[in-house]
Amino acid sequence: MRLAYLGPAGTYSEEAALKYAPGAELVPFPSVAAVGSAVSSGMVDEGVVAIENSLEGSVNDTLDLLIHESGIFIRKELILPIEHCILAKPGVRVQDVRVIFSHPQAFAQSRRFIERCFPKAQLVAAFSTAGAVEEMLAHDGDAVAIASKRAAELYGAQILARNIQDRSPNVTRFVVLADSDHAPTGNDKTSLCFTFAEDKPGQLFSVLKEFAERNINLVKIESRPLREGLGKYFFLADLEGHREDPIIAETIDRIKAFTSSLKIFGSYPRYQNDA
Amino acid sequence: MRLAYLGPAGTYSEEAALKYAPGAELVPFPSVAAVGSAVSSGMVDEGVVAIENSLEGSVNDTLDLLIHESGIFIRKELILPIEHCILAKPGVRVQDVRVIFSHPQAFAQSRRFIERCFPKAQLVAAFSTAGAVEEMLAHDGDAVAIASKRAAELYGAQILARNIQDRSPNVTRFVVLADSDHAPTGNDKTSLCFTFAEDKPGQLFSVLKEFAERNINLVKIESRPLREGLGKYFFLADLEGHREDPIIAETIDRIKAFTSSLKIFGSYPRYQNDA
Repeated sequence: MRLAYLGPAGTYSEEAALKYAPGAELVPFPSVAAVGSAVSSGMVDEGVVAIENSLEGSVNDTLDLLIHESGIFIRKELILPIEHCILAKPGVRVQDVRVIFSHPQAFAQSRRFIERCFPKAQLVAAFSTAGAVEEMLAHDGDAVAIASKRAAELYGAQILARNIQDRSPNVTRFVVLADSDHAPTGNDKTSLCFTFAEDKPGQLFSVLKEFAERNINLVKIESRPLREGLGKYFFLADLEGHREDPIIAETIDRIKAFTSSLKIFGSYPRYQNDA
Repeated sequence: MRLAYLGPAGTYSEEAALKYAPGAELVPFPSVAAVGSAVSSGMVDEGVVAIENSLEGSVNDTLDLLIHESGIFIRKELILPIEHCILAKPGVRVQDVRVIFSHPQAFAQSRRFIERCFPKAQLVAAFSTAGAVEEMLAHDGDAVAIASKRAAELYGAQILARNIQDRSPNVTRFVVLADSDHAPTGNDKTSLCFTFAEDKPGQLFSVLKEFAERNINLVKIESRPLREGLGKYFFLADLEGHREDPIIAETIDRIKAFTSSLKIFGSYPRYQNDA
């Protein structure tokens, strides 16, 4: 199987891809949108992208991909703990560090550690934690990068500190994208989005009412801009159950009557930690 | 009046601050959290921060500040069109450009333009569009930055292209933070957040029911992580009306009964373009 992920090698997405399919041929892509195109075009069989972090919330690139791109579905989900490390070139000493490279989310998740241990360091933004390691290695002076343990192995960097994130648990939920979703297993989730033609009081309520009346648990609800000005949204919902379950199918049919568009991202088995 | 904003000078936040209070003493701060601390500590009278963009959605730093920081309220909102420009050092020619500096959001909003006009350029992330201009000016080779017209004036850069964002309208909603919110004007909005002690079907529905039954329009609803693991959220809602309006006050009282916490970010006049 060919499996796309948000590269370069050493990102947490690669870690998720390795955990999901250890034997797959991994293919790095430079953006979430590129992973989506690789899947929808058949260039790869499946793709792994982050969708939500327990500290930072949703990954908007992934939500927007699911909303706007056709021909891709969520086939699985998986959850990975995020453990940030301080990486340096061999020989660099903590007291000499002047510059820290990382992705803005990793900076945000490690704010307290940085303020305490590197209060005067200059922070430099990178597009990914693995990219930050590349920039750190190319930097002339004494620099470090915030990235994963695996990135340290891949790039031959030394680890100066482990598990530096501010709070636990710091976990990220990933989804596996494919050309179809998953057959029912009896313990499933369904992700979908919908929108309304006009802005009227109580519309969202009418949708939630259909779920509530049938005792269907909404695991998550959120909004993304419709891109037609402020105040117009797609609503995204994750619910318990499979789209082929009669009660879910019936509810979705009902909802179609008062939404202007409804798209099912897929039904897939609820993640269970096998560790 | 002393007015804090997300600096440095030349950011869209500064533009919003200038539009809001042309005569104020503007004080730049390096982060949204710092603007919040400046307001809650009384170091400044008010602060201006972006809360939502029509293409990219909510500004999570601002939502998290409102959720977690006490003693700050939304006093006003204002809306600013975002018009990205390509800035260069005087004398740099379009055909020589190899590197583009900007904030990741500005890259995301200008993707099509960049792919068409600078398909081979290296993109370098910065913490703000104004910061990108500083990095561009310090760069040895032929580089450009994506930033505002005002940043070009402030930094003495030339503008090579205007209005390069992919889609219109690209507008950002800003909020003015202060130690109290605004008195009723008859055309107001109220922003609040709430959460639930346990995860049970239909809870969010019960809250929305209270609004729907009274015909109160929910302008926006979304979720942010509770930071206690995946699947636990704060729900944030914007609704039409002032918290002192009897019907809103009654609804909020009712909702308190089945939420585990409820925080009112403030009531403030709905923005009206006076241009």
